[in-house]
Amino acid sequence: MPELRKDPIIDRWVIIAAERGRRPTDFNRAPDPLKGAFDPFAPGNEDRTPPEVAVWGRSTGAAPNTPGWQVRVVPNKFPALSLQGELDPRGMGLFDMVNGVGAHEVIIEHPNGEWDFDQAQDGEMRLVLQAYVARINALREDSRFRYVIVFRNVGAQAGATLSHAHSQVMTVPILPKLIKEQLDAARDYFERKQRCLYSDVLNQELSSGERIVEASEHFVVMSPFAARFPFEVQIFPRRQCHDFTLISTTELEALGDVLSRTLRRYKKALNGPAYNMMLQTAPLSRPHSDTIEKDFCWHIDILPRLTSVAGFEWGTGFYINPVSPEAATQFLREAE
Amino acid sequence: MPELRKDPIIDRWVIIAAERGRRPTDFNRAPDPLKGAFDPFAPGNEDRTPPEVAVWGRSTGAAPNTPGWQVRVVPNKFPALSLQGELDPRGMGLFDMVNGVGAHEVIIEHPNGEWDFDQAQDGEMRLVLQAYVARINALREDSRFRYVIVFRNVGAQAGATLSHAHSQVMTVPILPKLIKEQLDAARDYFERKQRCLYSDVLNQELSSGERIVEASEHFVVMSPFAARFPFEVQIFPRRQCHDFTLISTTELEALGDVLSRTLRRYKKALNGPAYNMMLQTAPLSRPHSDTIEKDFCWHIDILPRLTSVAGFEWGTGFYINPVSPEAATQFLREAE
Repeated sequence: MPELRKDPIIDRWVIIAAERGRRPTDFNRAPDPLKGAFDPFAPGNEDRTPPEVAVWGRSTGAAPNTPGWQVRVVPNKFPALSLQGELDPRGMGLFDMVNGVGAHEVIIEHPNGEWDFDQAQDGEMRLVLQAYVARINALREDSRFRYVIVFRNVGAQAGATLSHAHSQVMTVPILPKLIKEQLDAARDYFERKQRCLYSDVLNQELSSGERIVEASEHFVVMSPFAARFPFEVQIFPRRQCHDFTLISTTELEALGDVLSRTLRRYKKALNGPAYNMMLQTAPLSRPHSDTIEKDFCWHIDILPRLTSVAGFEWGTGFYINPVSPEAATQFLREAE
Repeated sequence: MPELRKDPIIDRWVIIAAERGRRPTDFNRAPDPLKGAFDPFAPGNEDRTPPEVAVWGRSTGAAPNTPGWQVRVVPNKFPALSLQGELDPRGMGLFDMVNGVGAHEVIIEHPNGEWDFDQAQDGEMRLVLQAYVARINALREDSRFRYVIVFRNVGAQAGATLSHAHSQVMTVPILPKLIKEQLDAARDYFERKQRCLYSDVLNQELSSGERIVEASEHFVVMSPFAARFPFEVQIFPRRQCHDFTLISTTELEALGDVLSRTLRRYKKALNGPAYNMMLQTAPLSRPHSDTIEKDFCWHIDILPRLTSVAGFEWGTGFYINPVSPEAATQFLREAE
């Protein structure tokens, strides 16, 4: 019997239809068409991107936009938003619009175009995550921006157009729907219970254990109870904290290891699927609630793109997941 | 300058980034891998589907599950929900679940596996739409079902696994998130204004005209102001009506023509893109509001699948659309 499960944070139900279910190897993976194309992010091609806005690892005194970097941040050459201009909110009858003002940056994560999180060596992940913190904090200075999202699209199936490992950072002048739903739920729960909803979910998961992929000193990797996609995972810090940029040095190091290991699990269990990864953290400006420091918790979502999103999902906002989160947990646990 | 637009019904913003924009011919279309595969929906293969639950066009007295039909409805061979069993709502700490009880049917729209909406002849579309009405009304009899969605996935990019033209009908025991948001917004607006929000949007669109693809006696085809996807359209009846099954015979005939013509526009402008089509209608049981007969309006959404949904969309619930609805309208208008 399939099961309908409600996401414990927002009002979204998911059909877990494991009868349709398949083993990880049943998810056919087309060869990635991105490999082998020209690589504008490779050292030596620095002039093929807009000039860098931040860089790590280049020797002091070396010229900008030349090789020698370890992590390099550039504006997106084809930005979805414009860095210049004012919001200029306006309306027309029932319609509301503002100018598409926001940053859209690319964090090139490593000089080697074949590198990815799963093969990171000592300190490489730390540099990438430090770049996340630094760019979020730099963009926070601009009062036009209400929210920042850091995400990775890996593989053509996940919407990537280049195979060289990179993250994207976007700021938007409006609090996104999905973030607002999470923040509202967290605030309302705290008001009722004086506890953090995310921490309560995490504690329940740790106590049952059936959806815990790994639990180490600082982080927990779990398959969400109402996962939308097969092998979807969430990564939570053990220390409840609303804002990713408040991560400690020790946690940053540990998160690098956890991300790298999680991607190795995907490679082993699923032969390196296309995926989207998103960092969900507190809004940049104006706290969403008086209690946000206690009521919300930043986290990372990783969504392997193995199934398609079709009419049912677009028409209802519900999802059909053919692999139970418990089975996904087993496969991922064993893939170490 | 890109523009951020708010959907006039729900709290979803879309980035219209037409600077990234492209002409219809710029959307590369991979050859559809579904063509040429075995067709379980072809006449003569009736034993390859579960036994039919409804049929149109077969001579009286002919045996069921034999050729001779025009439209044939069968249970989905790989249903996402189970028709048997009770809901049995239950919880576990912070988690809520119910049994995955629901219907999942397939409407095979034509005997010819090469047929599609764009090439429909006299009366063929009417039969398909009559099947929609009949199946919704049949499933309404089952009090376990709260909502019914009828949708079409066309092309592999849109999640289809078979190329023979078909619609799917699914009932769910819980009001879907996206429908609830629409119904809530419509109810609240009616409470304030004593008017239907959908009709007000439609009237504003008809008065400006810049996003109207076509407006005929009974139906209006428009590009939504905050379209998520390039060339997305919505089809609204001129006569405000909450429930699709209350469609008149004249309207049904006209809707068939409108759908067929809209798909011909897609074929001409976009070379036949993969798309999802969804019918959004009132809940099956228990009116969502006291005023639902006046506050809501059924409609059809068509989403061509030309762009990918990636980390930004999954992480925010916002969308990036590289073709402005006004430009899409122009292209579709001219493609007649």
